[in-house]
Amino acid sequence: MSGAIKDVVIVGAGFGGLSAARELAKAPVNVTIIDQQNHHLFQPLLYQVATASLTPAEIAVPIRHVLRSQRNAQVIMDRVVGVDANAQIVMTESGKKVPYDFLVIATGARHSYFGKDQWADHAPGLKTLNDALALREKILTAFEKAEIVVDSDPESARRFQTFVVVGAGPTGVEMAGAIAELAQSVMRDFRKIDKGDNRIVLLEGGPRVLPSFAEDLSIRAARDLETLGVEVRTGTMVTDIVAGQVTTSEDTIAAETVIWAAGVQASPAGNWLSLPVTKSGHVEVDATLRPQGLENVYIIGDTARHEADGTALPGIAPVAKQMGIYVGRRLAALVRGQTPSKGFRYADAGALATIGRNRAVADIYGMKVKGFAGWLLWGAAHVYFLIGFKNRLFVMLHWLWLYLTWQRGVRLIMHRDPEKQAEKPS
Amino acid sequence: MSGAIKDVVIVGAGFGGLSAARELAKAPVNVTIIDQQNHHLFQPLLYQVATASLTPAEIAVPIRHVLRSQRNAQVIMDRVVGVDANAQIVMTESGKKVPYDFLVIATGARHSYFGKDQWADHAPGLKTLNDALALREKILTAFEKAEIVVDSDPESARRFQTFVVVGAGPTGVEMAGAIAELAQSVMRDFRKIDKGDNRIVLLEGGPRVLPSFAEDLSIRAARDLETLGVEVRTGTMVTDIVAGQVTTSEDTIAAETVIWAAGVQASPAGNWLSLPVTKSGHVEVDATLRPQGLENVYIIGDTARHEADGTALPGIAPVAKQMGIYVGRRLAALVRGQTPSKGFRYADAGALATIGRNRAVADIYGMKVKGFAGWLLWGAAHVYFLIGFKNRLFVMLHWLWLYLTWQRGVRLIMHRDPEKQAEKPS
Repeated sequence: MSGAIKDVVIVGAGFGGLSAARELAKAPVNVTIIDQQNHHLFQPLLYQVATASLTPAEIAVPIRHVLRSQRNAQVIMDRVVGVDANAQIVMTESGKKVPYDFLVIATGARHSYFGKDQWADHAPGLKTLNDALALREKILTAFEKAEIVVDSDPESARRFQTFVVVGAGPTGVEMAGAIAELAQSVMRDFRKIDKGDNRIVLLEGGPRVLPSFAEDLSIRAARDLETLGVEVRTGTMVTDIVAGQVTTSEDTIAAETVIWAAGVQASPAGNWLSLPVTKSGHVEVDATLRPQGLENVYIIGDTARHEADGTALPGIAPVAKQMGIYVGRRLAALVRGQTPSKGFRYADAGALATIGRNRAVADIYGMKVKGFAGWLLWGAAHVYFLIGFKNRLFVMLHWLWLYLTWQRGVRLIMHRDPEKQAEKPS
Repeated sequence: MSGAIKDVVIVGAGFGGLSAARELAKAPVNVTIIDQQNHHLFQPLLYQVATASLTPAEIAVPIRHVLRSQRNAQVIMDRVVGVDANAQIVMTESGKKVPYDFLVIATGARHSYFGKDQWADHAPGLKTLNDALALREKILTAFEKAEIVVDSDPESARRFQTFVVVGAGPTGVEMAGAIAELAQSVMRDFRKIDKGDNRIVLLEGGPRVLPSFAEDLSIRAARDLETLGVEVRTGTMVTDIVAGQVTTSEDTIAAETVIWAAGVQASPAGNWLSLPVTKSGHVEVDATLRPQGLENVYIIGDTARHEADGTALPGIAPVAKQMGIYVGRRLAALVRGQTPSKGFRYADAGALATIGRNRAVADIYGMKVKGFAGWLLWGAAHVYFLIGFKNRLFVMLHWLWLYLTWQRGVRLIMHRDPEKQAEKPS
């Protein structure tokens, strides 16, 4: 060891932050992890909460529970409002000033509407449990409203039964497939609205779905989506979104539910540090994942822009995780006075996306897997990477239940909008 | 059969309304069930959602899913705003006018603050999933806030670690016991706050807890609560509640979290029908569960006041359920031109309340059961009455998990208050 115990502050307990914290478990440091949420979220399955397949508790676990046995780590549930890089202090909303020797920023990203922020109200995205529950409520309520009005106003009913997903990356593709399956499975419980009036549209500006996958997998995914009844429209730009309507480069679509899966905006970490950021808010980092000019600050995951072999790494969980592990190990070496390993290198294991029951596409270590085999691989990989034995067990049981019965277990509308709540006593 | 198909409209899909609907499955009627929620809720276990033991989906099931095979029933998710008893029409918020030949009102109750409605903001009650999630968030956030301030402001930390439950009926007793257990189990995950600073206070105006139970069971329940660390204070009236503080007839208690389990206010059904109501909003019904002067309207469950042997029946699930079955059978007989059975009689099977792990009191068919045996009986009865095999299975598995690991699985704070949400892209 070399000198006094160092303070490592990690902001954000996603895949990156949590991995960094865990790598430091045996290092002579005090780790403080700050997050505005109390839970680590397994974002890759968030769309299954939004489509009533899984419950929030199955894909989230309290951060302090994950770190309960790591005695050198403490957790603060608070929101970071700024960083004083000269004084080496992180400032929080509740007024805490947390000093650091090393700072790791792993604060992720939210949706970007490419400057059209007025679209946000009509086309919510999917980043937090709150987003997922709001979306679940919106989707389920749409069917209920269609059932109420279908006799008197069939046009409105069709608008309620139309779902538009903007963006055909993995999230958009998985969301569109899941909505198509949800729509089919709930239909048995309704008396009036017609299955044939359900419409799920997937809009993509580029030439193909899943642009980051190999081309034949894109073709297969599009075909699988169409088999599920999804209208896949590539090369279609969204030009406007208002309440109940999406305008594209080709037409307008009357749709009550529009879901945004198109762009991301990095967290404001760049602003905290007065660093130059890209158009989408990312901070450029070097091979050691540090921004230029700051010796003891690391930026990882979706907040960072890191080029490898000339292209920026994608904002996906494996990148964040590997970056977290790299920084954790690097800091452990530094505080021990050892020479840290060289620059970060991303080991790309491939990509996976599921399109629904029995259907997925996977590109794993250069091997392309489709259909049922891809789907099994997808399920196994996602269960494996879930944190906590209980979550793995319950997700598997829940999936098994869904598979055998076709019953979506979590079709709850909780009236989270306070104006729509049950009336209070007068 | 006698003449045209009759329309039966049931408002509310709690225990009463759903039981009535099911009894009419084979009767020559059209059943329309209207509820502002999309789910039937198993209210007796709601406190376990509020204390992070169960997920919402485990104790709630979509109404239309319950009735999916009952071809003569349709479900409308809408809020009733009035009834025209002369025209025999129910009016809803979305503007629907639903005609009826027979109307069954089973709309339940909410909390009553005995005229002190300003207490509602500081002492929420527990009737809906939304209530339960808000309470779960408040309880879990209190520990997080205590952890943040304990170094700089130990007095505030103690306020955050103090929980007051007002009212020691079954809900209040079960809530206090569950909070005491939750407080113990989460403590392992915190680094700074002290177990000894947790304080759970149960306030009851009357002379004993569980006033509707036999006296020796009350004594046992109070002892069990005290073993769990709950301060049980009977004969203590609440005189005021403001943010962070409860004033009683004896003292003031600094507490961030106050939970109201003291009084109920019946739904506004009496107003819809311009009927005289009791002080707490209940409508007096006769032996056939009809209010005076209305031939084809039935009022059941927590909205009704029905005297049996000189005392009013309690507002509990078994009463509502039996009333629903009675009305369903009566209507089935009437529409078939048969003579319906005589007046409603409540078959009192007894009462149960759990105080925590391994502890419950039960008074079943005059038999008193306490401790571990009572707890097993309580668990078996609650699982048995849950609707849906999946819910039974998952609740059992979840309880087994809790029992073996002591881990509360649902400790999620989702920032339902939009002001506290993660920041949006700017």
